[in-house]
Order: sequence, then C-alpha cells, then structure tokens
Amino acid sequence: MRNIKLTIEYEGTNYAGWQRQKNTRRTIQQTLEKILRQILQEEVILIAAGRTDAGVHAKAQVANFKTRGLISLAKLQSALNSLLPSDIKISKIQEVPLTFHSQYNAKLKTYRYTILNRSFPSAFLRNLVYFYPYPLDVNLMQKASLFLLGKFDFSSFAKTDKKNTSAVRTIKAIKIKKQGHFIYINITADGFLYNMARNIVGTLIEVGRKRIPVLEVKKILKARNRRIAGPAAPSRGLCLQRVEF
Amino acid sequence: MRNIKLTIEYEGTNYAGWQRQKNTRRTIQQTLEKILRQILQEEVILIAAGRTDAGVHAKAQVANFKTRGLISLAKLQSALNSLLPSDIKISKIQEVPLTFHSQYNAKLKTYRYTILNRSFPSAFLRNLVYFYPYPLDVNLMQKASLFLLGKFDFSSFAKTDKKNTSAVRTIKAIKIKKQGHFIYINITADGFLYNMARNIVGTLIEVGRKRIPVLEVKKILKARNRRIAGPAAPSRGLCLQRVEF
Repeated sequence: MRNIKLTIEYEGTNYAGWQRQKNTRRTIQQTLEKILRQILQEEVILIAAGRTDAGVHAKAQVANFKTRGLISLAKLQSALNSLLPSDIKISKIQEVPLTFHSQYNAKLKTYRYTILNRSFPSAFLRNLVYFYPYPLDVNLMQKASLFLLGKFDFSSFAKTDKKNTSAVRTIKAIKIKKQGHFIYINITADGFLYNMARNIVGTLIEVGRKRIPVLEVKKILKARNRRIAGPAAPSRGLCLQRVEF
Repeated sequence: MRNIKLTIEYEGTNYAGWQRQKNTRRTIQQTLEKILRQILQEEVILIAAGRTDAGVHAKAQVANFKTRGLISLAKLQSALNSLLPSDIKISKIQEVPLTFHSQYNAKLKTYRYTILNRSFPSAFLRNLVYFYPYPLDVNLMQKASLFLLGKFDFSSFAKTDKKNTSAVRTIKAIKIKKQGHFIYINITADGFLYNMARNIVGTLIEVGRKRIPVLEVKKILKARNRRIAGPAAPSRGLCLQRVEF
C-alpha cells in the first residue's frame, strides 16, 4: 500500500466546493476521485487538508489517498493533468508515510483574499478577485484585524452554529497589504469554521469603508453572534494559498 | 458631434476576434457596439487600433466612435462596465479631437505572448498563457529574433498572401524575457499582418526547442513563403498590450 500526497491548484468557479456531494452539482473531490479511479482502476478516497466552499479557489490544496497501484509518480501526475479539466491541475505529487493524513496533520492553513479596489473591474481576473470600487482605508482594516489574532471562539464569523462542536480556533496571522489596485488579506489559522475567512474579510471591508468602527470588531468577536458581523465577502476572491504540516 | 476614445481590456477566449462578422459567432466589436447603441440610442461604429484574431486578448485595445450623445464620460464608462459581459471591460474613456482615428493614427502596437514553461499547466491562467512543457533555450530565441528587427516583407509570417496589399512592416522591438516559469515575448511594430505575431512566436519556439537553427530564421524571412516558417502559436497566449499614437 502506498500513500500519495497531491498538491492541487484549482479555480473553484465552476464547482460546488471541494467536498463530494450526493446531489448532481460537481465538486473538486468528485472530479479528482473519478479520474484517479480511471487511471488506477480501483476505488480511491481523497482526504483534503481543507474543504473549500463553492466558488473558492486553491493555489495549493493538499490531499492524500492510498493505493495498491504501482504507477510512477511522474506518470501519475502527467496522466492526471491530461485527464483533469483545465481548471484543476496537480502541481506536485509525492509519496508519504502511510500515517500521513492531510486533514489531521494540517497544522496551519493560509487563505488569501484578493480585492480589486479601483473604479473598473478586470476582464482577466473576473473570477479570481472581488471587485470593490469604493475607497477602503487599509490602515483601519489592519488595526481591526489585530483583535482577531489569537485563540478565540469565532462563532460570530461562522455561518452556522453546529451544536457540540467547538468554534474555538487560533488565528496566527492576518496580513493586509495594498499593492497597486489590489488589496491582499492573508489569514493564517490552525483551522477555519464554515465561511469564517469570508466573514472576517466582509467585516474588515466594512471597517475599511468606515461603516463599522475599529473597536466594534472586538465586540463582534466577543458577542459570538453571527448576526452582528459584516456580510460574507464573495467566494470568488478567496483562495487556499498554503497548508503547513 | 463628439469623438470618444475607449481603452478596452478583454479576454478573447469566447469571441471570434474583434471584428464584426456576418455569421452568428459573436465578436468584441459587435458586443460593444450593441451596448453602446443601447446606452446612446443611436447607431455606433467603433474603429479599433488593431483587429485581434479569435481567442486573442487585449490589455489595452483602443477604439473610437462618434456620437451626438451628451452623456458624461464617467457615466458612460460605468454604464458600459455594468452592461458589458464580465470578459470585456473599459479601463479608460476620453474625449478626443474629431480628427482622431484609432486605426490610422496608431503608430505602434505591442503584442505580448506568454508561454508557461514548466512541467504542469496552470488552472488559473489556462486561457491566458500557452502551456509548453518542453525546455526552451531563451538565448537562442533572442538571437533569432534579431533577424526580424527592421523593415521587411513579412509574408513568411502572414497567414494569407492577399494580392495587391503590401506585406512590408517594421518591427521596432522584440523583447524576450524569462521570469520564473514564464517566458514573455513582446513584439512592437508599426503594424501586424494576419497571424504575424503568432507565426513569429511559433517560429521562435521552434528555435528555442532547437528544431530550427538560429540562422534559418533569416532565410525564412527572406523566402517570403509562409510554408517554411514554424506553426502559429495558439491564440490564447497572445495579448494586445499597448497602442501608441
């Protein structure tokens, strides 16, 4: 038995997220598993580091699977890349110890959110950035983000309060950088609740727009109440950038 | 009467090029003219600096049109950008003297060709670059490109020999730059024959691949015979980058 680790780049625009689903909308996991099955002629179950939501992209998602197949890694990568649709590609393939588990062993994940902040949208980047034409005060956004650093119950930034599951996560870093017309928000955490990255970004945008005062973000976090945070920023701007093990 | 100059960014993937056509495939010109007609409530004829081919993109195509409309430029730009499909956007709008003509007054055009030169394709850039996994010697490509600088009959690099029209053009600059996994080929000329940029790039790729010797490019140019040059590089890698007046 071998354990194979894939690093995957995908544009999530045309997918209902990572996770396999029972309904008919196609997902990244389904698409990959189907093609792995074709190549390896056996059932394959992919375990991903993070289950990205519908429309969210990945620069370097990590997923592993076990196989009895003896195909070389180089051959497998090129077979995958020629059979996969053009919006999903394998950037790296490695054999790892049988104990390696993409989800359980993932220590940190970094999501990047990209805002295009100018008066007109981009024809090229339309699926990859959130076009936001109103002025944003990046300084205020940076100040507000400091309240979110550390270990907290992030219920205010989670889509649903699932009972009996902890909403405690640790945000290690939030880096906000303006570069030309782009604003990049990188959030590194040990885990993300459902919609957490998009809800944080949506709230920071409201701060940058001066519709939520900086100090209010501290209160929102403490409240553990989804209704008082800003709206979720659109999924197209979000990308799973890096997974650290 | 006013003369309005538009700077246009588009991803050409889903269009049969710039020029209005009688058949049913949609073009950039048609799409823009239709929406201008809707906004201005009058017939509009757009004149472009360069008629990009099917699948070719533009970072800054320039086109002008005349109108009796009194709408402000800011309003017109935002109306256009909200009504245009997401793969065509107006980055700049200006009022210019009535004598300005995008095609006749264009002195230089720069096309950029982008090659992704590594072992796996990109999910994000699939429509914007030519994925070429084999090693390319950029040095040889640079040397070969020198033969193409200047005023020549470029029939060897034109798709069709239209009778009675001159195939003489002047290439002012060819810059080839490797940056990470990308190879950029910028070609600046006073004009381009049909498929000329793609044929030059296709030939330079053959040189970089060591299938055409550097010196052969000089002979190809002199031969004025399309059949002996390299194949056209795919349109997806080509982008009209700049027009100078």
